[in-house]
Amino acid sequence: MRELSEWSVSDSGTGDDEIVANGNRLLIGNGYLGYRGTVEEADASYLPACNLSGVYDRRGGLWREPVNAPNGLSVRLRATGAADGDHPLSIKDSSLASHEQVLDFRYGVHSRSSAWRLGGAEVRVRAERFASLADVHLLCLRYSIRADLDIRLEIRQGIDCVLWDINGPHLEGRAFARDGGELSVSCRTQELGIPLAVVSLSALSFEPASEAVDESSGHFRILALDAKAGVDYTLCVFSSVYTGLDKDGDPLAAARASAGRAAAEGYASALATQKEKWDAIWEKGDVVIEGDDYSRRALRYSLYQLQIIAPRHAEGLSIPARGLSGQTYKGAIFWDTEMFIAPYFLHAEPAVARNFIAYRIATLDGARRKAREYGYRGAFYAWESQETGDDACSHFNVVDVFTGRPMRTYFRDKQVHISADVAYSIKRYIDITGDSSILDEGGLEVILECARFYISFAYYSPERGRYEILDVTGPDEYHERVNNDAFTNRMIRHCLDAARECLSLLGRTAPESLERIVAKIGFGADLGRLEELRAALYVPSPGEDGVIEQFDGYSRLEDCGLDELRSRALDPREYWGGANGIASGTRVIKQADVVLMLNLFGADYPPEIKKANLDYYEPRTEHGSSLSRCVYSLLACETGDSEWAYPFFRKTAEIDLTGDSKHYAGLVYIGGTHPAANGGAWMAAVLGFCGLSIVDGKIILKPRLPAAWTSVSFSLSLRNVEYAVVVETGGYTIREK
Amino acid sequence: MRELSEWSVSDSGTGDDEIVANGNRLLIGNGYLGYRGTVEEADASYLPACNLSGVYDRRGGLWREPVNAPNGLSVRLRATGAADGDHPLSIKDSSLASHEQVLDFRYGVHSRSSAWRLGGAEVRVRAERFASLADVHLLCLRYSIRADLDIRLEIRQGIDCVLWDINGPHLEGRAFARDGGELSVSCRTQELGIPLAVVSLSALSFEPASEAVDESSGHFRILALDAKAGVDYTLCVFSSVYTGLDKDGDPLAAARASAGRAAAEGYASALATQKEKWDAIWEKGDVVIEGDDYSRRALRYSLYQLQIIAPRHAEGLSIPARGLSGQTYKGAIFWDTEMFIAPYFLHAEPAVARNFIAYRIATLDGARRKAREYGYRGAFYAWESQETGDDACSHFNVVDVFTGRPMRTYFRDKQVHISADVAYSIKRYIDITGDSSILDEGGLEVILECARFYISFAYYSPERGRYEILDVTGPDEYHERVNNDAFTNRMIRHCLDAARECLSLLGRTAPESLERIVAKIGFGADLGRLEELRAALYVPSPGEDGVIEQFDGYSRLEDCGLDELRSRALDPREYWGGANGIASGTRVIKQADVVLMLNLFGADYPPEIKKANLDYYEPRTEHGSSLSRCVYSLLACETGDSEWAYPFFRKTAEIDLTGDSKHYAGLVYIGGTHPAANGGAWMAAVLGFCGLSIVDGKIILKPRLPAAWTSVSFSLSLRNVEYAVVVETGGYTIREK
Repeated sequence: MRELSEWSVSDSGTGDDEIVANGNRLLIGNGYLGYRGTVEEADASYLPACNLSGVYDRRGGLWREPVNAPNGLSVRLRATGAADGDHPLSIKDSSLASHEQVLDFRYGVHSRSSAWRLGGAEVRVRAERFASLADVHLLCLRYSIRADLDIRLEIRQGIDCVLWDINGPHLEGRAFARDGGELSVSCRTQELGIPLAVVSLSALSFEPASEAVDESSGHFRILALDAKAGVDYTLCVFSSVYTGLDKDGDPLAAARASAGRAAAEGYASALATQKEKWDAIWEKGDVVIEGDDYSRRALRYSLYQLQIIAPRHAEGLSIPARGLSGQTYKGAIFWDTEMFIAPYFLHAEPAVARNFIAYRIATLDGARRKAREYGYRGAFYAWESQETGDDACSHFNVVDVFTGRPMRTYFRDKQVHISADVAYSIKRYIDITGDSSILDEGGLEVILECARFYISFAYYSPERGRYEILDVTGPDEYHERVNNDAFTNRMIRHCLDAARECLSLLGRTAPESLERIVAKIGFGADLGRLEELRAALYVPSPGEDGVIEQFDGYSRLEDCGLDELRSRALDPREYWGGANGIASGTRVIKQADVVLMLNLFGADYPPEIKKANLDYYEPRTEHGSSLSRCVYSLLACETGDSEWAYPFFRKTAEIDLTGDSKHYAGLVYIGGTHPAANGGAWMAAVLGFCGLSIVDGKIILKPRLPAAWTSVSFSLSLRNVEYAVVVETGGYTIREK
Repeated sequence: MRELSEWSVSDSGTGDDEIVANGNRLLIGNGYLGYRGTVEEADASYLPACNLSGVYDRRGGLWREPVNAPNGLSVRLRATGAADGDHPLSIKDSSLASHEQVLDFRYGVHSRSSAWRLGGAEVRVRAERFASLADVHLLCLRYSIRADLDIRLEIRQGIDCVLWDINGPHLEGRAFARDGGELSVSCRTQELGIPLAVVSLSALSFEPASEAVDESSGHFRILALDAKAGVDYTLCVFSSVYTGLDKDGDPLAAARASAGRAAAEGYASALATQKEKWDAIWEKGDVVIEGDDYSRRALRYSLYQLQIIAPRHAEGLSIPARGLSGQTYKGAIFWDTEMFIAPYFLHAEPAVARNFIAYRIATLDGARRKAREYGYRGAFYAWESQETGDDACSHFNVVDVFTGRPMRTYFRDKQVHISADVAYSIKRYIDITGDSSILDEGGLEVILECARFYISFAYYSPERGRYEILDVTGPDEYHERVNNDAFTNRMIRHCLDAARECLSLLGRTAPESLERIVAKIGFGADLGRLEELRAALYVPSPGEDGVIEQFDGYSRLEDCGLDELRSRALDPREYWGGANGIASGTRVIKQADVVLMLNLFGADYPPEIKKANLDYYEPRTEHGSSLSRCVYSLLACETGDSEWAYPFFRKTAEIDLTGDSKHYAGLVYIGGTHPAANGGAWMAAVLGFCGLSIVDGKIILKPRLPAAWTSVSFSLSLRNVEYAVVVETGGYTIREK
């Protein structure tokens, strides 16, 4: 049973499915690493992970995925002298009497309390841990044992090197070192040889009866403890992780120093610092809904999930589609970041949003390589982007459930809108923050290379006197290889506009920079082509009924209801898209597509067009992506129907609380957290219900709260000023903080 | 067991598979109808058919298919007084003692001889039949019975209305009439209500003991015969078929007159006339290979298969892909006619080839409708064309063997080369015959509308400074939706050239006609666009290795061997093409594609390019189409390797003799005869090994016979002069006949 209270989420499940779900639901992290919500005694079968941001490895011919570090917080307890024999005190043992895990998401503290009944004795473990915000390499754990009768226990504490990997193992050349309570593992990734060190330094409140070392499956101390009834025995463990990608010299030395500092400071002090850091985060990032406890908590939990993966510690990092909850989706950065995650940070803490852009600047060469690979110029940003920007996606990304064969999919080569999404996020960053310095730091080069990609991609139809965008896949992935996808064409037009405006902006503010950048990438020859394409690029318009056709020929597809379509499935795991998916020949779409376009370019369309498209597309949308419902919620706010929008907001905000999301695409496991939905929940609440927009540096609010809400309060960071905003049903207040 | 002799093919099989195979192998016909090689007592389970050219019907939501007429040659024999009881004397009865069917393909006469042993008695039936060339509505049968002991027999003779249909029944409103030995059935097709009448008029050499009528499943006479030992009892049956599409007034009256004339003339005289007609056909159409009996017979048999389906009786008819052997492939006309069948007739009997063009002229409006349906102008000729030119092909033309679901295929909407194939055939007709009158009779309009289709279809890439042809499927159907298919682009260029040349030709010969046609279809506005597209249309060139890439990106596909690919199949019936077929991601192709282009435009390419492509593509070709091997054979002759070409010729020429061809595409039965391969065999023999070409009205021969052949003799009809040509290993002779 799981209970929710104001700032925490708890669960007492011990079944395999619950263990996996809690790994995501009770995740802690700090942008450098994510640590799954498993118990301390977890072995690899619990799907534990200390997932590292930006560190990737490929094993053999399998796909590249992020690296999980050896688990420096492993503690396994064993009753060795109980009346009914040896017992491992794990949550899977039959002697378990009670168990609960709690995540305090105000301060990012995971705790557990479990008791085992062994003959007449009860042994209870209480543990809490957090991923330090003060030192992002650091994980801190306090682990206490108390028995109600004297009992002999064995504690196996240290660094577990048997990891849950999808395509692992990734680490090799393991070397162990020990210095008293300090255990370490040094190793390196097998593809690129990136060194990685984990230190696990423990401080005991007791003197063990004996002590030994176990190096069989990791680096462990085996401590014997003759526990006395009613006495608390406590270990504090400080585990630090460094890799060769960190700019701190030798990873092992740095990890030792980090763990040593924390141990010297002590757990209680580190926890106090942690709380201060979180208070500061919430000072900027909290959003408080009044009148609706469920929504308030769900939204705050969503923001927690975003904050624990926000990359603040290094330049040029972004957020993967499943956050730091594991290796699913290859730990890759998708367009989710620019279109669904960035808006929250852009308004609450723009420096984080700027880092997403820095990541795209740093990976521009990968996007250039991808463009060249397909015969284009400019930057074709990856569908699944890792540290180099090369596309981690293959041409066969789904498995056919009927034949077991890889199925040709067109995520990689046909979702050409990603480059426009990247350009959009840069332009939006400048528009909202007023900070155009990013242009000179690579931002303009990115935008121009994206525009150039489309210049090289577009075809002209003399027949129709316009440029068209052919053979693409839009956000609705169920329909592959379509022509003139409305969203894609409109995004490309925006990209061309962004290029023109940013050229002009930098021309005014830093003409030498402009000249240097244009010369560097030889864009002069493309300036005329840019104008020509912008002038004649086709963007589908509303038809007589106000509906914008999603792509050429969409309206000639079978108009099959969702229930009817579901009834056609022969296998619950079969992929609805692809060339022969059951949705492909119908108008059923996976997720918001035209509706997303209407949100992004709302000023271009009158309300009746928005309403016509909302009414048309929503009944035809499966919402098979967590990116979908928030977009419909947003547009419904625009058309004045907040009550209609409200359940869509809730579904989005609760996704990682309930864990009720799609776990499979074809035969591929895609579980994990949903940062884009987390960001989407913020968008629906603040951009949707509060009606926030920033125009020319000015805050615009158009409150349209759902009936259940009395107010929404949040901070806004705008052009280096922090504002406190309170939106109520009938009005709002804004004050400088 | 089946035996082959000079001019005949025989078979004694009585198993179900053999019965189906003999239906095709022993087919007779006359262009108006095809009558399958089943025995006289066949019921629908034998897959008998009297398949009518150009008459189509749709039942319910099923696909349209050609109509089979009620079978007016049905004769069923029954021994009613034999010692061991009643026996139906069919080839499936256990009393069958011997059986043989023979097709004399010199004169198009099918005969059978079967004997049954009933107690001590043997009853023997000898029957022969032919489809009259003098009166194409007419089928003639002589049926003789002889027993070696006195025996009571029952003869059920008449018109069987229980037909083998794929998507039937097609005929309704049946009415019977009888006048002595003349039975008739009148009915109409159920979609369009086309009236259809069959008359079966029989003349008996004996007086039946009794006579009755059976109208249960058709219109039959039941004749009792007390057969005396050693006496022949003979029925001559004259069956005539007319439909409302024939320009002869009331079908029933016309059929009665036709059958009546034949009966008055008598069987022997009709047969003599038939032989004269065939002698005249062979006078023009025979090709005699000396030195290689197997090849000689196989080629003649192939020509027989073409002659029995050649439409000479009416204007505007063509040849379906499975001839008149049944309803497979919807009885539709494919590009097979223009590219594989027309060449034989063009050289032997140009009037027949002209009729194929008349068919395309008559169906131009259907091609215009298809272009409009997909948003284009001009004429987009159908992949599967019936009497209106509308496309009989659906978007779901193959069934997925794993799910049983219809699979989206792109035969219909992406095989855009058909229009160019049609234009090619017109241009080639004019070039070879010198008869440009066809231009004024609709030919120019067809060519211009085809060119206009491509004008509206092509896209310009400013990036590459050229027009491209995007998202098509070429002859190799295993790779759908490709860009810049070399064959397709080259054919389109030819179409544009043909349009320009024919405009200019008619401008010289009949300027008022030209003006009228251009004005009628408003082509003036497209003249500039035609020039522009022709000047900048991209046609892929050979790479450094001399190989022409089949389409953009082909050379990046997996280079998987054919055996390896075969081993990946999970089901022998699974479709290799389509989006997820096992061939789609590899370089394995179904049939000649680039190699076909090199044949058609041989003058553009030096021999080393031809050889490089032959060597490259042949090992990667499945030859999954009967249109494939002859093309490789042709190109191999061009590159001087006749010995290599020889087995490819044989495989092509023997296809309908052996019946060893593909019977299924996915789950769809595609059996029947193979006119395109029949025509391909002629192309390989005469255009390939003899090296025949016509340049500016002059006969060019470049003999390159395979070692087994000493000579090839054939007639050539060129500009109203008949030539006798003899090609020998070292030279040739040509003389006017």
